[in-house]
Amino acid sequence: MAITSTPLSIEKMDNAPLIITKHSAAFWRVTLDNPPINLMGPDMIAGLQRLMDIVETDKALKVIVFDSAHKDYFVSHFDVLRGAEVPMVSGKLGVQQWVDVSNRLHNAGVISIASIRGRVRGIGSEFILACDMRFASKEQAIFGHLEVGMGLLPGGGAAEYLPLLSGYARALEIAVSADDYDADTAAVYGWINRAFPDKQLDAFVNNLATRISGFELPALQATKTILLQRAGGRPDPFEIQESTNKFFELYQRPEAQALLAKLMEKGFQTDSDTEYRLGHHLGLLAGE
Amino acid sequence: MAITSTPLSIEKMDNAPLIITKHSAAFWRVTLDNPPINLMGPDMIAGLQRLMDIVETDKALKVIVFDSAHKDYFVSHFDVLRGAEVPMVSGKLGVQQWVDVSNRLHNAGVISIASIRGRVRGIGSEFILACDMRFASKEQAIFGHLEVGMGLLPGGGAAEYLPLLSGYARALEIAVSADDYDADTAAVYGWINRAFPDKQLDAFVNNLATRISGFELPALQATKTILLQRAGGRPDPFEIQESTNKFFELYQRPEAQALLAKLMEKGFQTDSDTEYRLGHHLGLLAGE
Amino acid sequence: MAITSTPLSIEKMDNAPLIITKHSAAFWRVTLDNPPINLMGPDMIAGLQRLMDIVETDKALKVIVFDSAHKDYFVSHFDVLRGAEVPMVSGKLGVQQWVDVSNRLHNAGVISIASIRGRVRGIGSEFILACDMRFASKEQAIFGHLEVGMGLLPGGGAAEYLPLLSGYARALEIAVSADDYDADTAAVYGWINRAFPDKQLDAFVNNLATRISGFELPALQATKTILLQRAGGRPDPFEIQESTNKFFELYQRPEAQALLAKLMEKGFQTDSDTEYRLGHHLGLLAGE
Repeated sequence: MAITSTPLSIEKMDNAPLIITKHSAAFWRVTLDNPPINLMGPDMIAGLQRLMDIVETDKALKVIVFDSAHKDYFVSHFDVLRGAEVPMVSGKLGVQQWVDVSNRLHNAGVISIASIRGRVRGIGSEFILACDMRFASKEQAIFGHLEVGMGLLPGGGAAEYLPLLSGYARALEIAVSADDYDADTAAVYGWINRAFPDKQLDAFVNNLATRISGFELPALQATKTILLQRAGGRPDPFEIQESTNKFFELYQRPEAQALLAKLMEKGFQTDSDTEYRLGHHLGLLAGE
Repeated sequence: MAITSTPLSIEKMDNAPLIITKHSAAFWRVTLDNPPINLMGPDMIAGLQRLMDIVETDKALKVIVFDSAHKDYFVSHFDVLRGAEVPMVSGKLGVQQWVDVSNRLHNAGVISIASIRGRVRGIGSEFILACDMRFASKEQAIFGHLEVGMGLLPGGGAAEYLPLLSGYARALEIAVSADDYDADTAAVYGWINRAFPDKQLDAFVNNLATRISGFELPALQATKTILLQRAGGRPDPFEIQESTNKFFELYQRPEAQALLAKLMEKGFQTDSDTEYRLGHHLGLLAGE
Repeated sequence: MAITSTPLSIEKMDNAPLIITKHSAAFWRVTLDNPPINLMGPDMIAGLQRLMDIVETDKALKVIVFDSAHKDYFVSHFDVLRGAEVPMVSGKLGVQQWVDVSNRLHNAGVISIASIRGRVRGIGSEFILACDMRFASKEQAIFGHLEVGMGLLPGGGAAEYLPLLSGYARALEIAVSADDYDADTAAVYGWINRAFPDKQLDAFVNNLATRISGFELPALQATKTILLQRAGGRPDPFEIQESTNKFFELYQRPEAQALLAKLMEKGFQTDSDTEYRLGHHLGLLAGE
């Protein structure tokens, strides 16, 4: 990762698949580590919410880099089998726990950077979209919102974050194609800031984060604050909540349950070709 | 076109230069066929309005692909000589007939895709902008808003749709340059979703449309609905009407009529070098 | 510069580092000429304000191209040592003089084009962002908002203009990285309309400006007016004023003064390696 000095600490968060590496008091790395496919389930969401509690009160932290311990999966997607375990009323706003995490990460005083290798689908994409910036490996990163292929809709923030970056037309294409996109296309569409050759990604992200960590906190915070103000409060967390409710409404239909059952038979939510090439397999399912 | 199975039906619409090919109950193709240069005139606009009546009530349709029967012209531009034949009050909103078509296409439950070869100028661009997505041939597609070069302004939706995709600066450049743009530049500017090598375009579009047609209608419609809501009602059809009124106001000036007369002498609205290289010829006219 | 005919006139503006070349009554070039590094100081800002007085009343002018007399510096940045000389209440809106210039340039009936070689940092970027369009040399242009590296924030319009073109994520990256960006990246991010090989830039810009100057003024003005209206009054000059106030507030802190003192020792505001590679040197400063 080209960070030459020894980290201050490396700790696994209690009861959460998150590893926190403190490169300095100002620069932390948070590594998602939920093998085998980095599903975003209740433990990861609860862990991220506790991380936000820490981040919001820490006085020295300036920048967090989020990455993955698994090169093929940044975040595969939401753990749909354990969806009911995620609290629907949480945090100060009284929204679903993931919506609370997304909103707090977006509005935090700290600068957040997603450094992406592997598959980033559904809530994984919504996680990186809640970060301030996103950089990805041209060879290793794959992006998708595949919810429509499962009878659902992108419901945890994509409908709110993505059109602001990509415009309506490309956001709709991403959503209704329910297919996988490479990093170069994601960069052209504004889904991510930039794609780099894999061997350059770490050096770029670490240099950027180190650089930011050396700048003055009042300047960083005033800059993020004014840019958030100019965005006029968008995305609105209550709109994200509305989309999330719509997601669960569609999920409970027998038609969506039937699609899910077919996918489970094919190895969905396990380390399988179905997860590896999910866009491809949803196309086959649609043609059945 | 790489659709292997035989269509269910291929029919020319009565009194309109539109051919409707039903690949399946869920996937229709509508081919613009107004030789020799695919002018958008009163018959095509009225036909598209009747198409919207059908589309809005059909229960099985999920996706429409719009293409052209003429490789050099997707839609050349508005038939200015027959502009007065297009009703100025039409549809439920009581707006000009084209504005009604544009608004209904944008807000329809069905997903619309423009598959573009040839010239797409003026109202042709406004037609593809009213579609949900746009894909074009790198070699064959040419884009332009040339109204300013004729003493007019882009008045049928471009001022409303284009800045949302390209930003103000590029929309203004496109409009005041009154020049032709290639598909690669159009893609960089967000005017279209993506440009493909000509030989890949049909396979991409047909695969995407077939894929969408296999997904569940409630998922597709909920996704489009939420993305439209997040766009906050933009573009506003009454703003498009206002721009359309401004277009006709400028058109009626003697200066615009004089420019039009010069263009007509040079073969405007006919299969001529003037239409083929209209951006070039408007530059010459400006220098006269 | 490939303008073949002799200009009507070439004049230096009194008491301002601006050279006005009138290629025709409709097409003027304004060249920034404040050696050695084209600092934007009180004289240039006052000169630009007087230019706007002229531009707003001239009946024949259609298009202005702004360029630089110094190939390494389009505008280095704000002359911080003379910042107090710029009136904080100026123009009809009673805003800081630069904010008045920016707002009037953006809203003027004339079309403005920045033709960019050299470094464009801070208020230099805010100047080109207030123009209608921006074209740059791939080899010669360098873009940066380096305020955060000096304990400040981008305060003269960047926070208002840039996210409308680049989206929030890329605007935040530009601002908090406080680093230099090449023209290709600036084009991908929407910061500029397009980057051209250096030897093509002048031909492109001069052709575009000549073309625009040959079109009808009512068509040009109606088009710019409707696009400005569709942008809903954004950017708001009073928001730019608020950002400008915040800039000066951060500037007066002892921490920012200490950073400035270190930079001055290294040759800041002079023709030095510090100015040439300012992004690099701010990184070193952050690591000290």
